[in-house]
Amino acid sequence: MFESAEIGHKLSKAEWKKEIPELREGLLDAQLDLLQSRKFPVIILVAGVDCAGKGETVNKLNEWMDTRHIETHALRDLTDEEIERPHMYRYWRVLPPKGKIGIFIGTWYSNPLIENVYGKTKNAELDQQLERIVRFEKMLCNEGALILKFWLHLSRDEQKKRLKSLEKDSKTRWRVTETDWHHYKMYNKFRQVSERMLRQTSSAESPWTIVEGTDPRYRYLTIGKSLLNALRQRLDAPESPKHEEPIPPIMPTIDNLFLLQTLDLTKKISKKEFEEELEKYQGKLNLLTRHLNFKKLSIVVVFEGHDAAGKGGSIRRITQALDARQFRVIPVAAPTEEERVQPYLWRFWRNIPRKGRFAIFDRSWYGRVLVERVEGYCKHADWMRAYGEINDFEEQLQRNKTLVIKFWLSISQEEQLRRFKEREKISFKRFKITDEDWRNREKWSDYEVAVCDMIDRTSTEIAPWTLVEANDKQFARIKVLRTLCERIEKALVK
Amino acid sequence: MFESAEIGHKLSKAEWKKEIPELREGLLDAQLDLLQSRKFPVIILVAGVDCAGKGETVNKLNEWMDTRHIETHALRDLTDEEIERPHMYRYWRVLPPKGKIGIFIGTWYSNPLIENVYGKTKNAELDQQLERIVRFEKMLCNEGALILKFWLHLSRDEQKKRLKSLEKDSKTRWRVTETDWHHYKMYNKFRQVSERMLRQTSSAESPWTIVEGTDPRYRYLTIGKSLLNALRQRLDAPESPKHEEPIPPIMPTIDNLFLLQTLDLTKKISKKEFEEELEKYQGKLNLLTRHLNFKKLSIVVVFEGHDAAGKGGSIRRITQALDARQFRVIPVAAPTEEERVQPYLWRFWRNIPRKGRFAIFDRSWYGRVLVERVEGYCKHADWMRAYGEINDFEEQLQRNKTLVIKFWLSISQEEQLRRFKEREKISFKRFKITDEDWRNREKWSDYEVAVCDMIDRTSTEIAPWTLVEANDKQFARIKVLRTLCERIEKALVK
Repeated sequence: MFESAEIGHKLSKAEWKKEIPELREGLLDAQLDLLQSRKFPVIILVAGVDCAGKGETVNKLNEWMDTRHIETHALRDLTDEEIERPHMYRYWRVLPPKGKIGIFIGTWYSNPLIENVYGKTKNAELDQQLERIVRFEKMLCNEGALILKFWLHLSRDEQKKRLKSLEKDSKTRWRVTETDWHHYKMYNKFRQVSERMLRQTSSAESPWTIVEGTDPRYRYLTIGKSLLNALRQRLDAPESPKHEEPIPPIMPTIDNLFLLQTLDLTKKISKKEFEEELEKYQGKLNLLTRHLNFKKLSIVVVFEGHDAAGKGGSIRRITQALDARQFRVIPVAAPTEEERVQPYLWRFWRNIPRKGRFAIFDRSWYGRVLVERVEGYCKHADWMRAYGEINDFEEQLQRNKTLVIKFWLSISQEEQLRRFKEREKISFKRFKITDEDWRNREKWSDYEVAVCDMIDRTSTEIAPWTLVEANDKQFARIKVLRTLCERIEKALVK
Repeated sequence: MFESAEIGHKLSKAEWKKEIPELREGLLDAQLDLLQSRKFPVIILVAGVDCAGKGETVNKLNEWMDTRHIETHALRDLTDEEIERPHMYRYWRVLPPKGKIGIFIGTWYSNPLIENVYGKTKNAELDQQLERIVRFEKMLCNEGALILKFWLHLSRDEQKKRLKSLEKDSKTRWRVTETDWHHYKMYNKFRQVSERMLRQTSSAESPWTIVEGTDPRYRYLTIGKSLLNALRQRLDAPESPKHEEPIPPIMPTIDNLFLLQTLDLTKKISKKEFEEELEKYQGKLNLLTRHLNFKKLSIVVVFEGHDAAGKGGSIRRITQALDARQFRVIPVAAPTEEERVQPYLWRFWRNIPRKGRFAIFDRSWYGRVLVERVEGYCKHADWMRAYGEINDFEEQLQRNKTLVIKFWLSISQEEQLRRFKEREKISFKRFKITDEDWRNREKWSDYEVAVCDMIDRTSTEIAPWTLVEANDKQFARIKVLRTLCERIEKALVK
């Protein structure tokens, strides 16, 4: 895999001088087109062998282009705000928006590589980590990102030469650390693991480009040109109609029996029972949050349900049991301008809680496979891939000891009508029934299909859906509270 | 000052039951009106004597209102991302946007109070800190915020009773810490300093409300009602025309001699000199950033100047000397949706760099007193107060060892015309001259007045403006680099 990057590529000064003006002009042009069109974000990863010139290369790219629209991230030590959240949080929070370029040195590849080389992970674990990266990058590409991955390579002899020459010069001596020499001694191991890594993570959408790092001119020009080509190609591609790969349709159930229909919506409890249980479970929930291990957990609660199914009321019964300092309720409405230029999961990543905290989502990322699917706000392929992306997202939360607790509040069509009318009567202002609510209602059966698909495809062992029979509000609220307590208790005991 | 809060206020259960339904209804209504009108943000501070029921009160407010549009912040230990930035950063980052309510327990008052009680600050320092708070709150009010400050008070005897009764109950015992008893012993000192603090920070726009904390019902209802009154008053106030206090006009210079006109724009240097100096100062700048003490500093560089004065080119000459990992260039254009619902300085606070980093602003917060003033985007009173607010902002940066280095790049009207025409000729696309550029040009003399006022009012010892004669690009770039080096060097030696 590294063969072609050990054959002594180089570029003469004359060739360099000839090529550079046009390249720089081209890059600036492309950057401006990108900025003005806001067509897509560009993510550039610069990784590779120690001292192969990663930093210099990134500086060169900054020099050639307009630094006002580039952000360079060298992510090393986790800050304490990052350490309490899933590993990928630090990358999500600095993803470039559409129209901009983000350059990463110290990427999501660094840890998996180092840990395996140092023997902290077995190959199976490494492969698992790489597979997650592949899925993450694939998602970014599907969301429109242009990802360019450069691996700067040096042969063993070249690396030694480079280290020595950096050490000799008093101006660059500081750049050579003990770790560098230590890694040099482990060259073969690094090479072997790197190769495995590159092989498994070179995909059609985001392939690695291996660049011989010995000659700076060769290195710069190779990367500069390949960036320019990639930018131009994407910028000049015709806007639409994009050829959509046909996606196999989901087979609808042939006997018209849906999961939701199997719910017994007549379930109810008496007022007395409700009051007793409410006190019991609110007290229990409060106690659980004072448990010694609670500060090792984070809790994400998701509420989805029919319009007027009682999400707000259920949320209130939870927050009543909590200290206001521990929770945040996030009402999910239309995305803001800053959110619209990011992948759809970005706005939820921003709200991932720290340890010992609750984030309660009133509607959530499931909008992608519900309203966006039914109303046609995204393409068939987009919502189809969302199931997997959402499962990946929730799995990352779970690995970080973040409980994901999801409720679907279900009411019957008749009960919804009754509540709509009641709301219109009681207080015109507070519970505004909009035309949209009535429109959604007309698509009841489309939503029903979407909900059933959602549950079938995203109710997982790590983040199961709880279906809540919500025609009786009291019954629903108790079921929500009880489920919450059970899930948290189980996690605390583990 | 605390007299009225020690006379045993209380409320009977019957009165409570009578009052509550209406209050809750009113609060919910007001909250919805607030959310829909997005007229202003609400900032509620809950402070006071230990164990006077701050947490409980905040929980009650959350219970009464719609928690989806309230955020409660109990800010204690600084995170490491906060610790590297000015003290107020942590509050800025969580300010509620227009339409929402932010509740703070553990406020900007906590530190000044504690430090003075513990004898870490003298009274003069306390007063200085309080004065800064007054200015900060005044700015928030001027930007439209509704600030409500509640101080929960307990007499010495009541505090003792409370501590004992909490300790007796096994369910609440955990709430009483050693610190609480320690503070109880210092009751008189706390009382004395608190009084000083409340006295100095009660302003017409954001007065303190002192509430006797003994009886929960009395406490909740007092705070609930005063919140409702304040909300209703602001919500129901007629939209416009707001009576504008007449602001004394700035006296224009009577002999038509402006500071900018005194600049010798014929200053220039030869190409040879430029190249020598460029290498010299870029090398020096690079070395300075490797200085041992550099990681204790942050650098904020501000570029303002006439259109086409060469801001971009000057910035490029700086970033060429830096490692891409250390700097970020922030191009300032129209604010985003999320920025528009915050005070105008918010978008700049978001970009304050960590230690050892540069933030280079291509246009800045000075837009408030330049374009917004000249184009009438804000009112006379708004840009007049901005001078002081900006000085306060920069002073906070400076106290946090953040250098603020500001450049005004000045060209003549003829030179601007030449550059506009040249740009239109050379490359229509890259340097787009917009109609707006031509329009701005017509207001040359208005801008000139605004620039001179800006410099007179914001060129301070801690953050001086450097006026750069920029008709000759080479001269300008060297002056910028040299100034930057000098400022950083001076700060490193200190």
